[in-house]
Amino acid sequence: MISSRNEVTEMIVAAKVAKGITWADVATKVGFSKEWTTAACLGQMTLDEQQAKVVGDIFGLPEDAVRWLQVVPYKGALPTAVPTDPLIYRWYEVVSVYDSTMKELIHEEFGDGIMSAIDFSMDIQREPDPKGDRVRVVLSGKFLTYETW
Amino acid sequence: MISSRNEVTEMIVAAKVAKGITWADVATKVGFSKEWTTAACLGQMTLDEQQAKVVGDIFGLPEDAVRWLQVVPYKGALPTAVPTDPLIYRWYEVVSVYDSTMKELIHEEFGDGIMSAIDFSMDIQREPDPKGDRVRVVLSGKFLTYETW
Amino acid sequence: MISSRNEVTEMIVAAKVAKGITWADVATKVGFSKEWTTAACLGQMTLDEQQAKVVGDIFGLPEDAVRWLQVVPYKGALPTAVPTDPLIYRWYEVVSVYDSTMKELIHEEFGDGIMSAIDFSMDIQREPDPKGDRVRVVLSGKFLTYETW
Amino acid sequence: MISSRNEVTEMIVAAKVAKGITWADVATKVGFSKEWTTAACLGQMTLDEQQAKVVGDIFGLPEDAVRWLQVVPYKGALPTAVPTDPLIYRWYEVVSVYDSTMKELIHEEFGDGIMSAIDFSMDIQREPDPKGDRVRVVLSGKFLTYETW
Amino acid sequence: MISSRNEVTEMIVAAKVAKGITWADVATKVGFSKEWTTAACLGQMTLDEQQAKVVGDIFGLPEDAVRWLQVVPYKGALPTAVPTDPLIYRWYEVVSVYDSTMKELIHEEFGDGIMSAIDFSMDIQREPDPKGDRVRVVLSGKFLTYETW
Amino acid sequence: MISSRNEVTEMIVAAKVAKGITWADVATKVGFSKEWTTAACLGQMTLDEQQAKVVGDIFGLPEDAVRWLQVVPYKGALPTAVPTDPLIYRWYEVVSVYDSTMKELIHEEFGDGIMSAIDFSMDIQREPDPKGDRVRVVLSGKFLTYETW
Amino acid sequence: MISSRNEVTEMIVAAKVAKGITWADVATKVGFSKEWTTAACLGQMTLDEQQAKVVGDIFGLPEDAVRWLQVVPYKGALPTAVPTDPLIYRWYEVVSVYDSTMKELIHEEFGDGIMSAIDFSMDIQREPDPKGDRVRVVLSGKFLTYETW
Amino acid sequence: MISSRNEVTEMIVAAKVAKGITWADVATKVGFSKEWTTAACLGQMTLDEQQAKVVGDIFGLPEDAVRWLQVVPYKGALPTAVPTDPLIYRWYEVVSVYDSTMKELIHEEFGDGIMSAIDFSMDIQREPDPKGDRVRVVLSGKFLTYETW
Amino acid sequence: MISSRNEVTEMIVAAKVAKGITWADVATKVGFSKEWTTAACLGQMTLDEQQAKVVGDIFGLPEDAVRWLQVVPYKGALPTAVPTDPLIYRWYEVVSVYDSTMKELIHEEFGDGIMSAIDFSMDIQREPDPKGDRVRVVLSGKFLTYETW
Amino acid sequence: MISSRNEVTEMIVAAKVAKGITWADVATKVGFSKEWTTAACLGQMTLDEQQAKVVGDIFGLPEDAVRWLQVVPYKGALPTAVPTDPLIYRWYEVVSVYDSTMKELIHEEFGDGIMSAIDFSMDIQREPDPKGDRVRVVLSGKFLTYETW
Repeated sequence: MISSRNEVTEMIVAAKVAKGITWADVATKVGFSKEWTTAACLGQMTLDEQQAKVVGDIFGLPEDAVRWLQVVPYKGALPTAVPTDPLIYRWYEVVSVYDSTMKELIHEEFGDGIMSAIDFSMDIQREPDPKGDRVRVVLSGKFLTYETW
Repeated sequence: MISSRNEVTEMIVAAKVAKGITWADVATKVGFSKEWTTAACLGQMTLDEQQAKVVGDIFGLPEDAVRWLQVVPYKGALPTAVPTDPLIYRWYEVVSVYDSTMKELIHEEFGDGIMSAIDFSMDIQREPDPKGDRVRVVLSGKFLTYETW
Repeated sequence: MISSRNEVTEMIVAAKVAKGITWADVATKVGFSKEWTTAACLGQMTLDEQQAKVVGDIFGLPEDAVRWLQVVPYKGALPTAVPTDPLIYRWYEVVSVYDSTMKELIHEEFGDGIMSAIDFSMDIQREPDPKGDRVRVVLSGKFLTYETW
Repeated sequence: MISSRNEVTEMIVAAKVAKGITWADVATKVGFSKEWTTAACLGQMTLDEQQAKVVGDIFGLPEDAVRWLQVVPYKGALPTAVPTDPLIYRWYEVVSVYDSTMKELIHEEFGDGIMSAIDFSMDIQREPDPKGDRVRVVLSGKFLTYETW
Repeated sequence: MISSRNEVTEMIVAAKVAKGITWADVATKVGFSKEWTTAACLGQMTLDEQQAKVVGDIFGLPEDAVRWLQVVPYKGALPTAVPTDPLIYRWYEVVSVYDSTMKELIHEEFGDGIMSAIDFSMDIQREPDPKGDRVRVVLSGKFLTYETW
Repeated sequence: MISSRNEVTEMIVAAKVAKGITWADVATKVGFSKEWTTAACLGQMTLDEQQAKVVGDIFGLPEDAVRWLQVVPYKGALPTAVPTDPLIYRWYEVVSVYDSTMKELIHEEFGDGIMSAIDFSMDIQREPDPKGDRVRVVLSGKFLTYETW
Repeated sequence: MISSRNEVTEMIVAAKVAKGITWADVATKVGFSKEWTTAACLGQMTLDEQQAKVVGDIFGLPEDAVRWLQVVPYKGALPTAVPTDPLIYRWYEVVSVYDSTMKELIHEEFGDGIMSAIDFSMDIQREPDPKGDRVRVVLSGKFLTYETW
Repeated sequence: MISSRNEVTEMIVAAKVAKGITWADVATKVGFSKEWTTAACLGQMTLDEQQAKVVGDIFGLPEDAVRWLQVVPYKGALPTAVPTDPLIYRWYEVVSVYDSTMKELIHEEFGDGIMSAIDFSMDIQREPDPKGDRVRVVLSGKFLTYETW
Repeated sequence: MISSRNEVTEMIVAAKVAKGITWADVATKVGFSKEWTTAACLGQMTLDEQQAKVVGDIFGLPEDAVRWLQVVPYKGALPTAVPTDPLIYRWYEVVSVYDSTMKELIHEEFGDGIMSAIDFSMDIQREPDPKGDRVRVVLSGKFLTYETW
Repeated sequence: MISSRNEVTEMIVAAKVAKGITWADVATKVGFSKEWTTAACLGQMTLDEQQAKVVGDIFGLPEDAVRWLQVVPYKGALPTAVPTDPLIYRWYEVVSVYDSTMKELIHEEFGDGIMSAIDFSMDIQREPDPKGDRVRVVLSGKFLTYETW
């Protein structure tokens, strides 16, 4: 029996490489954005029954695994407090270098509160540029105001 | 004598609150984006002589401080490996929850490499929304490919 | 010049002991709950101009400090990742022992999402009990659902 | 042979997903609150013989596992000092942001001591709200006074 | 103005060395055990008005400091997670080497629960021994049972 | 082949639960205190050949395991620098809150040195008390003086 | 099925020792520098189909493993934040002792920016020296300037 | 009186910015490489009397500071285990990504031992390149063989 | 296939206990000091072909393992930054208590540099003493001087 | 008033550099080994009245400081868990690389117990060697046996 979502993620990752599937294809079949679909397949989001079946078919998962895809996962999994992979580290570096800037400017515009990481979406695109193409990432999160009571 | 950029940042922050200056105003006077200007005033970027003088005038800084603004700072300053301020933490959470997603999708589109955090810009805007306004952040970084040699 | 909210918090704490003021009294004068008011005086919440003036009068703060009370603070300040004070540690222990329980039951009731710590309130009361009075804490936070996009 | 309570918890979790059992049902059969029952099934509480048999029947556990449910477990199991799952992190954030507030107000009401995390109960409910339902958590712990000797 | 209990502890420690006072003398004057009195003077316990005045007289403290002695302190202050002083480290070592033993034997005798560190007392004595005198420490804490609800 | 003492400890723990053996019984058969015997069975002490055979018989261990019981173990095994189990944490808390007190009083009585954790014994007893029984722990360690050379 | 690049690295390392292959030979067959080739075989670089087949032949890898060599790996894998192996630690020591020197001199020559670790190459050679041969390492990375926007 | 080398380093850094001195100039006057001279001025190397006087003249240091320059410093000063400044982090990243590569290739060439970080020199140069200038760093350290005894 | 030196160390340790072999015997057969031989068998040193065969015979290792003994190992393996085993901790304590003393005295005698841990040997002997035998450890390391360039 | 031994250590260190005193001279005047005397002056050992006066005279300390020298200090002061200074790090490396060797050989010779770091002495000498002088350190600590009770 499968005892964690992690085992399902490993099955998906192994099947993806073995079968040469792309995330873009998976997203098209599931019918949602490639960002959300990838996060879901990698164990960060919960799928509904219909989505889980599609994903199960694509990767050839057993029935138990399909059921696990519908269970809310334990999210977040940086293997170390500070990430070591260079691509992921650059994001941590952005947080480290621009944290006070983001804090100051968001508060200057919105007052006290946060940008939600739950009511949130992300879009990753290639931005053609003659000096070398760029990665363009748009993050959009609802602003949530601190309540006074 | 001033022995670190940090002392200059404290002078700027103290003057900003005492005089009620906004970052938007500073950016207008300096002539660059509010994101870059704020990062520079908060000790993360290097100013040229002209920019440093404008910032010195706005905040009433001594000559020594104006000179320090032109010195490359020791960047990055998360007080702890995992940030505790809720607004900043949400960004760390985005890294934690979506790290594998970003890694997979950027590599699927561009191959092996990273999104630069140096040849990089950031734009923070209010996104009006009837269900509650959103914070929209656009990050743009040049894609850098791993070299084979 | 004052260069951080922390200095204001120290002034408030020093004045509170020197003058023998209670948080309940401060809350009454500010006109909000004792929980929010205490958090605000201890540097975790932003006050509006009117509230800041009342707090400034109560603790005899200089004008600069009153202005700092209106600046969004860098929140959260556990001196160590795991708190050492026994009263505060017990809360960390509750998180440690009951984390999986809270996760399972909130997801069983609401699906995937979180209980907000921003649109959030807390109420602390004495609960008389013949076997020894109890501390009763009610936490109420809006449930936020993970979006699919 | 089973050599830790953790193995039993994994059996329970695997069976729960495979059989589609809810914690509410388990609690009804065990005859205690859903909060205590869930904590017990997840390896944080000790069951008596009768309770262990009921749980063993529900999840189809072997006899050895039923015996392990009656052994006092090594409690607490945050995989990292600072939790990464967003739902659980929000609780850590509450401790981080409101720790001084809770300390001040509980001491103002009760004097020196702590709120027990042992003689303690928790109740999690849905609080209907037109602006979005809320999670309402009531924590009740006996106040314990520091002794002078 | 004094803004933390820590400053008071430093005054006491400085005066103790300067004046050559012993903890045993302080305890006699305060009228409680040397263990509790020392802990209180070192910023871990709260004194009542009468006790605070006696301590203030002994160490020549200003009035503000006497008031701070009556404020519940932020307790616990290991400068690092693992203590470096050899005498204190030996206690940490006892926890590390005998933790499972203490857990097993206390649970075998009492069932599930803990030994309180609040309703707790400690007595430190010299135990004469021809092979070299021993330190004998008696710890006594109320057993607290986990509640079922 | 068995390659660590840890494997033997797991065998003992698994057999203890499966067979319902108590540590008190084991101690009686081994002929030493329940504290030392439990520590030895849990992999913290070295047994001589005779003791190892008795323990091997009680728990039904293979010959290799009996040999491992006679090998000096790698002692100490807190899974994290700060323990998470509430019973064990209370001991860490005692170290954290009373460390300076123990240091001051032992030095006041004995001068510079430490209480040994090697030439050391521990005795855990139930202390009946009408207000709730107490755990009474007596620790006795030889005082070791720092040498001057 | 193989579920991580790490498994492939272990296969390569095991085969290398069992068959007595040198990295220099592998590099010659792959047709790139020994530095890049070794990094690639050790799971830090992505191989193209042709390179992967050559490596697969050399080490006798299964087809699945050859496919994994073409997947961008999770890079970086210091087992601890501070490395314990003496050869690797010396590099960390160079960073620790000369970090401010490198920062000052690179900025003095190039202004604000970094030396890329992506558009980067490394060459390791033996430098004969009568007082004992030396290791000569040449690192070459493109300088990347911080952008102003 | 000056009680640490660190105070001297701060004086040097403050004077350098105030007077607009370059490291290249300092090195010319001291008569050694710019790498060694900068490291020495930044508190990582010991100067002899003659060198210390020259440095003292350049930066206008008091006599006490000149004496401190001749005291062996406590070297190494990464403010955190993992550096946060992007320029310095890239070096840590090189260690993280290429550590196993460096270890394998140095051992393949030299056998068991290390590259010394003591009998060591470093040379930093601009490497003109039409695709963007590069930073070229040459490290040279004596190879030290592990002894057998 | 064996994929790490660690597996070989486990085989050696398991065989040592199962067969009752002493390190002194191994050293005699290998023909080097007991200190170096033990370190080599425990995975910290590299053996040559002849030595590896002798060790392989003594412990009955497979051919693959004998080959691994000749591969330079990843050295150093404290399971935690601060060791928990009391015998090993005492060494860490010596470093902690006497670090500044060793630094001052070695520099006073030799100037700036280090005591090598590579060109290094260690000798552990019993030192008979009527007040209780002592462990006498002699460490001898070549002094390496910092170079000026 | 002086409130910690640390302040006294700083006075001694500052005076040592300012006056050009050597530890060897101090030891001669105090009449004990240079190792113990240096440790004592650096805040790790307790001096008696006579010794404290001699040290006070040598370094020109105020009376309060002389009294503090007679107070048992909080020992051990590695600024980080893993030391960064290369000379001190080499000692940590010795612990890391040879820990299992020391453990095995001391236990093989003495049985279960430790080498005391309290009833302990250290002797540091220059060992002339044609291939480069060596640092020879002799550590001698009483063996302490684990008691059975």
